[in-house]
Amino acid sequence: MENGYNVAVVGATGAVGTKMIEMLENTTLPLKKVTLLASKRSAGKELTFKGTKLIVEELLPESFEGIDIALFSAGGGISKQFAPEAVKRGAVVVDNTSHFRMDPNVPLVVPEVNKQALKNHQGIIANPNCSTIQMMVALEPIRKVYGLDRIIVSTYQAVSGAGINALEELKSQALAHIEGTHAEQLEANILPCGGDKKHYPIAFNALPQIDVFSDDDYTSEEWKMINETKKIMEDDAIKVVATCVRIPVLSGHSESVYIEVEKDGSSVEKIKQLVAEAPGVTLEDDPSQQIYPQALTSIGSKETFVGRIRRDIDIDKGYHMWVVSDNLLKGAAWNSVQIAETLHEMDLVRI
Amino acid sequence: MENGYNVAVVGATGAVGTKMIEMLENTTLPLKKVTLLASKRSAGKELTFKGTKLIVEELLPESFEGIDIALFSAGGGISKQFAPEAVKRGAVVVDNTSHFRMDPNVPLVVPEVNKQALKNHQGIIANPNCSTIQMMVALEPIRKVYGLDRIIVSTYQAVSGAGINALEELKSQALAHIEGTHAEQLEANILPCGGDKKHYPIAFNALPQIDVFSDDDYTSEEWKMINETKKIMEDDAIKVVATCVRIPVLSGHSESVYIEVEKDGSSVEKIKQLVAEAPGVTLEDDPSQQIYPQALTSIGSKETFVGRIRRDIDIDKGYHMWVVSDNLLKGAAWNSVQIAETLHEMDLVRI
Repeated sequence: MENGYNVAVVGATGAVGTKMIEMLENTTLPLKKVTLLASKRSAGKELTFKGTKLIVEELLPESFEGIDIALFSAGGGISKQFAPEAVKRGAVVVDNTSHFRMDPNVPLVVPEVNKQALKNHQGIIANPNCSTIQMMVALEPIRKVYGLDRIIVSTYQAVSGAGINALEELKSQALAHIEGTHAEQLEANILPCGGDKKHYPIAFNALPQIDVFSDDDYTSEEWKMINETKKIMEDDAIKVVATCVRIPVLSGHSESVYIEVEKDGSSVEKIKQLVAEAPGVTLEDDPSQQIYPQALTSIGSKETFVGRIRRDIDIDKGYHMWVVSDNLLKGAAWNSVQIAETLHEMDLVRI
Repeated sequence: MENGYNVAVVGATGAVGTKMIEMLENTTLPLKKVTLLASKRSAGKELTFKGTKLIVEELLPESFEGIDIALFSAGGGISKQFAPEAVKRGAVVVDNTSHFRMDPNVPLVVPEVNKQALKNHQGIIANPNCSTIQMMVALEPIRKVYGLDRIIVSTYQAVSGAGINALEELKSQALAHIEGTHAEQLEANILPCGGDKKHYPIAFNALPQIDVFSDDDYTSEEWKMINETKKIMEDDAIKVVATCVRIPVLSGHSESVYIEVEKDGSSVEKIKQLVAEAPGVTLEDDPSQQIYPQALTSIGSKETFVGRIRRDIDIDKGYHMWVVSDNLLKGAAWNSVQIAETLHEMDLVRI
């Protein structure tokens, strides 16, 4: 590095890409140059970075010449094809798609939880799934002290996780329904999952499908939460199970999380204290004042918010909590930029 | 009964009351006359019943002279004051508020589950909480065959449960936010709970508070699900715990339900078959065709819809499912009218 890194954002015009650019505007990473890459269709668009206009360039293998760090968020197919091209040209890739996440040669990193895994990177680091990341940040301080035997999570996921067009669809469906269009007549072309056969309205609805269905009638999103948790926490013995649900929220994923800890000695007060003191987490938990995390108030923050921590009625080592974070930031763009910052701090950017 | 019953609807102009009138239009209950009662403020309003106009009358103790069956849904305070007046005058009361639910002298009834409890009524029968009812209908066929050791439920509850004004608030907040009003500027006067101190926007948000906070930082809504389940299933040993969340849906409560059964021999296929054959339940469960229950498509149906039934990843006797029903119908108005029909069928309306 001389005077800073050359950083590329792949998928610069997308819901996550634009947030990556925002996060880079305030990064502690020394920056020399930021290059914005996207599909041919988006090439030529102008975006603003720190007050100057940058032109989006078409993504090509040669785009990565001279790039030190490449942040990818343009779909699994693009990562599969272009991440190796970037690595070949000397860049470290932080990939926000699911493509490399379960590859044993690719670290899957939430900096607050397992930054040590970065030491083994071979050019590609994977950013976990949005719904996994915030749960990891919330649970790691508890796991470190009391261990985790079991996690049952039901998610309340925002539409922005499905991209800019899904956001527009939610808004236009909501307007149409309020103005009198019958639910059966609402136009739906994207959710629950762009790549699946049928589409359903999300406005004033709750869809228990995120991503396609996979083995045993779980969805891929649910398997991501299960498998990624075990990889990030480096513990295949943790019992994890998820029900992933899309709700008509623009941004901010919420999660109803039930855990059973392993060791004796835990209490609601101790768990609150651990959460309050942990990095990346803000405790918002005062029922007497109606203080608890909310999707709407999480927007724009890099933090994960935790509240409604309470003991299970019947199981001594069981606790329930409500975990909320801006899915586009800690769930995607911020975690990616934070990984890049951590690589720099740990002197792991190969140049 | 001569030529049918005289039925009164108390709270006739409310979100549930208007649905009670709809349900009475198609009831199997022999009807002689329907009397609509409400507060002084609503008295004089005209409502349609089977094509004829009925005038809403002011609720007074004397309103119940000659009434055989009174359906109450006007708030706990009204039930406390007027239900005994109705009983005193010979009416049987079906009360949709929480006021009498845990009274040991008051049967708490979901007809598909425990209609035998009606035999012990002393004039008042309580209609359970909306979120409890649909869970009971879904789980009873499983409990009967395999027993239930434990239930963990996270709810996705619609705004209509909080009344007509809450529905209007959701719509106006949604419109304002889409048209550019910042989340912090959205006007909120009702949710999460009319009787509590602070109010938050529900549009594009998820609020982990329904009703006021109670013991141990659980909400009253969560305690209702816990306590009512044990009373309806007549089994204090069932472990039940709930996280109740309001989401921006107009009508149709959804629930992510985890259960552990007691006996050996269960399987996903057997549980699907039990649910499919049970009264009041429709199995909507074909992931290969993206078939699962949805709040939007549940509206207007008396059924409880169950889908996404799958085995827990780690626990042999653990199952997850997604349970949806129209909270104003099976969760309130229909269950009340159904109780009245069942009282008639069992010859338990005292006249």
